[in-house]
Amino acid sequence: MARPTALSGFPEWLPGEQFVENTFVERVRRVFELHGFAPVETRAVEPLDQLLRKGETSKEVYTLRRLQAAPEGDEKENLGLHFDLTVPFARYVLENAGRLHFPFRRYQIQKVWRGERPQEGRYREFRQADIDIVDRDSLALHYDYEVPVVAAEALAALPIPQVTVHTSNRKLAQGFYQGLEIADPPAVLRVVDKLDKIGPEKVATELRDTLGLSDAQATACLSLAGIATPDPSFAERVRALGVKSDLLDEGLHELTVVMEAANGLVPGLLLADLSIARGLDYYTGTVYEAKMRGFEKAGAVGAGGRYDNLAESGSDRFPGVGISLGITRILGLLFGAGALAASRQVPACVLVAVTSEETRAASDSVAAALRRRGIATEVAPAAAKFGKQIRHADRRGIPFVWFPAQAPDGPHEVKDIRSGDQAAADPATWEPPAIDRVPEIRTP
Amino acid sequence: MARPTALSGFPEWLPGEQFVENTFVERVRRVFELHGFAPVETRAVEPLDQLLRKGETSKEVYTLRRLQAAPEGDEKENLGLHFDLTVPFARYVLENAGRLHFPFRRYQIQKVWRGERPQEGRYREFRQADIDIVDRDSLALHYDYEVPVVAAEALAALPIPQVTVHTSNRKLAQGFYQGLEIADPPAVLRVVDKLDKIGPEKVATELRDTLGLSDAQATACLSLAGIATPDPSFAERVRALGVKSDLLDEGLHELTVVMEAANGLVPGLLLADLSIARGLDYYTGTVYEAKMRGFEKAGAVGAGGRYDNLAESGSDRFPGVGISLGITRILGLLFGAGALAASRQVPACVLVAVTSEETRAASDSVAAALRRRGIATEVAPAAAKFGKQIRHADRRGIPFVWFPAQAPDGPHEVKDIRSGDQAAADPATWEPPAIDRVPEIRTP
Repeated sequence: MARPTALSGFPEWLPGEQFVENTFVERVRRVFELHGFAPVETRAVEPLDQLLRKGETSKEVYTLRRLQAAPEGDEKENLGLHFDLTVPFARYVLENAGRLHFPFRRYQIQKVWRGERPQEGRYREFRQADIDIVDRDSLALHYDYEVPVVAAEALAALPIPQVTVHTSNRKLAQGFYQGLEIADPPAVLRVVDKLDKIGPEKVATELRDTLGLSDAQATACLSLAGIATPDPSFAERVRALGVKSDLLDEGLHELTVVMEAANGLVPGLLLADLSIARGLDYYTGTVYEAKMRGFEKAGAVGAGGRYDNLAESGSDRFPGVGISLGITRILGLLFGAGALAASRQVPACVLVAVTSEETRAASDSVAAALRRRGIATEVAPAAAKFGKQIRHADRRGIPFVWFPAQAPDGPHEVKDIRSGDQAAADPATWEPPAIDRVPEIRTP
Repeated sequence: MARPTALSGFPEWLPGEQFVENTFVERVRRVFELHGFAPVETRAVEPLDQLLRKGETSKEVYTLRRLQAAPEGDEKENLGLHFDLTVPFARYVLENAGRLHFPFRRYQIQKVWRGERPQEGRYREFRQADIDIVDRDSLALHYDYEVPVVAAEALAALPIPQVTVHTSNRKLAQGFYQGLEIADPPAVLRVVDKLDKIGPEKVATELRDTLGLSDAQATACLSLAGIATPDPSFAERVRALGVKSDLLDEGLHELTVVMEAANGLVPGLLLADLSIARGLDYYTGTVYEAKMRGFEKAGAVGAGGRYDNLAESGSDRFPGVGISLGITRILGLLFGAGALAASRQVPACVLVAVTSEETRAASDSVAAALRRRGIATEVAPAAAKFGKQIRHADRRGIPFVWFPAQAPDGPHEVKDIRSGDQAAADPATWEPPAIDRVPEIRTP
């Protein structure tokens, strides 16, 4: 067959890069668990009606079909791949409500799929790391600042540029539009959400021409979206625009509480940025977009918000708040910029040489002794000349080559192939330098 | 909306079970890395022609389609979800051959999907943990025993019943059938593969009636499949059947080498079991089926073998050998039998009580101090009565509740809610017993 080629939008890493991703996932998981978030994984598929019930996302869904299904049949099995981890989690909460304790804190690190035409570096398969807190009936406001604080601590555990969480509140924007007597606030929100992409002039045009706003309304909407402050002073600037509504007051209050508490815990973490809207329809209050320093133009590396109505069934209601970190997107940006790499392509710290195929068992037993003490070790593939065996280690970045004793009581020797230093060593006690034990992540 | 229900064949765990799965994955990964296997992940999708080129599996594939795709179009994008990790890995090796060093050792832990009608406890989505070693042009035989030895070490790191690796060799069976002058050996292999499911009589009938074997041929095939020995004595028993062919000799030699070396390294690990055939067409030599003690009837919890021709392109050929551990299957069996559970449903070891919402920041700061020293901690959801806050911890299995100082210089106290013991403690130095730090896996 012909040599296969990559599929656009479906990233795959080389082993060194995969090691970096695994390390990221492990560190993020560790921080989430330190904060008491419990692990959940959901199946990759959801019934289509579940995926589509909050609108706006239908274009992005991959649907599934069994290859051998009858051409017409199986309509009851209308399944699609999940496009985020929030919708499946809301379904999981409803399905298991009787077996979970609320407020329920969970993290979820999985791949998601979006059936988009690949363009502008968009992924069709990517890994997200989410935390969410849901409660029954109502959810305390303090979780709205806890979530970005935990996310920030997770990101701070990674060797990446600093991340700022741009934060706004849907009630604030929606209340402001209502105060302006705009008929369809969600439609305005969707247009304003394009500010980053198309700029203020085109947004103004679209607000006037497509949504029928007056010049004054459009100008006020753009003025609101132009407000960004690192502290709660955004509230005065909003009030200076002279618009009034109860929902606006509620939004201003919530965002003020969130800004003060989060920046009290992690100074400089949040930026009140009233241009933030978030495309997904399920958010109802606080919304977040995390941007990485130096990569602001690349869009959000994390996003989320509060959703008071996503998980409801009959009279049961489970409001939630959460944030999703774009692991694949962060890695893609930093690998692309040459800003992240592993110090070697394989986990092995030691290659045990093989003197002859007849004595391979002796090399196996040295390797076993080293592994028992946690030293990752492989045995040479063949009893080639030692020079060739050393090259095998060198090409993979394995720092040490072990030469087993040539006689039952003879000395073993180990060579640091970087310095060329070679010395006698005992498989039961020899230790590599701590820095060589596992591959390091380098940020050149 | 109505309360959602589970989808048959797509297992989802509660958080305590997910914790067990995560721990399994972490331990298996650790052993694989100790043996120098490098991490690889492949995308979930492959072009359909790639998935179907080795036959016999077409019925199991889920195909993908963008919801908004034109009814006819997009045929160039014929994608399906991978049904194992071997076919994608072979594709990955061909695609990246110029950037990998051979022999290449990789592990891969991911979910796979099979579009089967759910039945007999079969999963449609499940996690596998694979190791494979591939080389260029030819692959040394010692890897055929290294692979089950590493797999056994990984399984031995898990709190599960002992696993035995039933091992055979395709050349042995195929050479035997050729020696019997049977026209279509692979067809016989496929029928014999059903021995476990339908029993010897039905296999004999099918061999005679469907494949046209003589009574003597069918009897000889069943005699071969009846041979199982814990040592290399299977070879004499095969020779006693009086069938001769070069390929049979080659198979006997390879299986003898593999049995002797593997059982030398891990006594009792391998059982030569000539009934093992493996359904997938890509195996060409050694084949493995791992069975868990007490769950033999449930089928294999691991499987694999050598594939000399799976990864080829033009004149490039990358023979490989590997084994796949069925993580989801193992967990499903043991959860189902009530043989595995987590000691608590959440990672938190400590719940910090909140005296009043005004002093929540004081509780947050105790939690931060404990987390800095690696103690998983959550803060109470609300400043309820302490009795209610203790019940919050109790329901989740959180062993300790922390009561922050009531005055700036006052004493903090911590209560073990199992014993009721309460004592003064300093957030900067207090340590929980080691056994309480993280949830334990229990095997009741």
